Amino acid sequence: MSKTPVIAEIGQWLNDSESFALLSHVRPDGDAIGSQIALGFALMAAGKTVRLINEDGLPENLAFMAGSEKIERPSGEPVEVDVVIALDTATQPRLGERTLAAVANCRRWINIDHHKSNPGYGDLNLIDSSSPATGQILYSLIRELGLPMPAESRDAIYVAVSTDTGSWQYRGTTAETYEMAADLVRGGTEVGPLNALIYDNHPMRRVELMRALLNTLEVSSAGRLAHWKLDQATVSRLGVKPEDSEGLIDIIRAIQGVIVAVFFEELPDGKIRVSMRSKDPRVDACKVCMLFGGGGHSLAAGIRMSGPLADAQSRVIEAIEAELATLND
Amino acid sequence: MSKTPVIAEIGQWLNDSESFALLSHVRPDGDAIGSQIALGFALMAAGKTVRLINEDGLPENLAFMAGSEKIERPSGEPVEVDVVIALDTATQPRLGERTLAAVANCRRWINIDHHKSNPGYGDLNLIDSSSPATGQILYSLIRELGLPMPAESRDAIYVAVSTDTGSWQYRGTTAETYEMAADLVRGGTEVGPLNALIYDNHPMRRVELMRALLNTLEVSSAGRLAHWKLDQATVSRLGVKPEDSEGLIDIIRAIQGVIVAVFFEELPDGKIRVSMRSKDPRVDACKVCMLFGGGGHSLAAGIRMSGPLADAQSRVIEAIEAELATLND
Repeated sequence: MSKTPVIAEIGQWLNDSESFALLSHVRPDGDAIGSQIALGFALMAAGKTVRLINEDGLPENLAFMAGSEKIERPSGEPVEVDVVIALDTATQPRLGERTLAAVANCRRWINIDHHKSNPGYGDLNLIDSSSPATGQILYSLIRELGLPMPAESRDAIYVAVSTDTGSWQYRGTTAETYEMAADLVRGGTEVGPLNALIYDNHPMRRVELMRALLNTLEVSSAGRLAHWKLDQATVSRLGVKPEDSEGLIDIIRAIQGVIVAVFFEELPDGKIRVSMRSKDPRVDACKVCMLFGGGGHSLAAGIRMSGPLADAQSRVIEAIEAELATLND
Repeated sequence: MSKTPVIAEIGQWLNDSESFALLSHVRPDGDAIGSQIALGFALMAAGKTVRLINEDGLPENLAFMAGSEKIERPSGEPVEVDVVIALDTATQPRLGERTLAAVANCRRWINIDHHKSNPGYGDLNLIDSSSPATGQILYSLIRELGLPMPAESRDAIYVAVSTDTGSWQYRGTTAETYEMAADLVRGGTEVGPLNALIYDNHPMRRVELMRALLNTLEVSSAGRLAHWKLDQATVSRLGVKPEDSEGLIDIIRAIQGVIVAVFFEELPDGKIRVSMRSKDPRVDACKVCMLFGGGGHSLAAGIRMSGPLADAQSRVIEAIEAELATLND
């Protein structure tokens, strides 16, 4: 591979600067935290001073990651660094208010992401929407620039890409993705133990949540719409944390014949969070969500709307059924 | 790679013979059916006559596989072929009685498998227990012998290895496994659509089964033992098929703190099938199962024992608790 101009420029900035703050989005997932650790430990191994800041801190389900102890919440004090690097974050506000306030004095921004909708809010922008995860972009960057790849970075890239591809399954997973995995394994990543930590290590309350959700499951529209819900009483009873529900919607999305899957979740402030998945490009989840002030992608979209739960549910279901009805024409 | 003598000999047999019967084990999974399709279509593309025979036929959950229409049950008529090839089958009886009777006249047997316990019951035996799936052995064999790799074979290998590694996750998954996946993708395998068919295409009754099982979930021994059960009344009510429960035990095996997970299943004849998983090498599931006439591996074992369900459950749980108690010493 020959270096593209932006990669060469990023290399120059990384080389010429001494201190860095690496940021990722609110409600961070494996690709967000994994990207921070991956690039952060590569830079530290190159002798740089690095801080890894996330508005919501380290979620419990990613605390197994080597290097994750470096993830800090914004303390309220200004962070003085030469360069800020935003990772895996489609829009700047998704970095969080306190985080943005903390780095407000920094004038040099690098923005590395795989979200198509990223408007390029950095001074240097490396946006590759063909990559299934920001972790894979960082793998290429580290290799191309000849940066060190310490064990923390190596395993963090594996976690980032594994979690963002649903364990090497989703559409964006390419031959390069599998070749990267092979290279990480040759470098020392232990596939079995690491995956056990990623996927086989759920708190009991996640399984209780799964049971509670399944007990509210309803399938309608001749089997084409599946939905379940979570109210605050259940959240309190089970002690549900935000990360516990991650990926559970796939259980009902996977049902044969289901075209749209929806998760209705009552939030502490009484608002309702709606997560919607479509399996058919002719049924645009984003379009439905936009009717209620939400948005997203055509196959995965969401809403944050006023309650109560039952009202939100019936309004959204009605809109989905109208959309499904167009398939019959 | 230089050809090992047995691979060269297998190549000779494949080349010199005209007709083949490819077999796999009873209750076939993705690696069993995938291996039959993979080698079968490679041989057919090389101009050979091939039959793909399985005692239990093609399970509904694998009917999406291109080429799976070639899978037939033994008809009762003798099958006259030059060579029988047993795939992914640890012991000959696991091929099934009717299948073994059908090929009884055949004198030349090839045995290709990745089970460590395979005693080598073929005339030629290619047993590689370092391979995470028989599909991966066949991939190497096809490449080494320069056999054709039609689309059916290519995708069948992907399905075989993906399903036997829990989507590229389990301990046996190596750098070569990921490199193989990269090669299959470069050859035309469409990762997104194929995985949607493997993993996102469950009948509604599988989700209903998941709910029914979760509603029987019990955790004991200070959180170290999780178990659930399925009785015949539930099997009838939901119309459960054998393949519906495949992999569901992973849900409770994945609970933090759980060391042993057990699935108790009442069979139509009143016998109880017990599936046991251990997450800790110090707790030997096989040893516990052998107390009741069962067997298997140290981390995954099983029993077929007399009922009734509640009796079997209490006897097995008592034995597991005795085993867990030794951890406290």
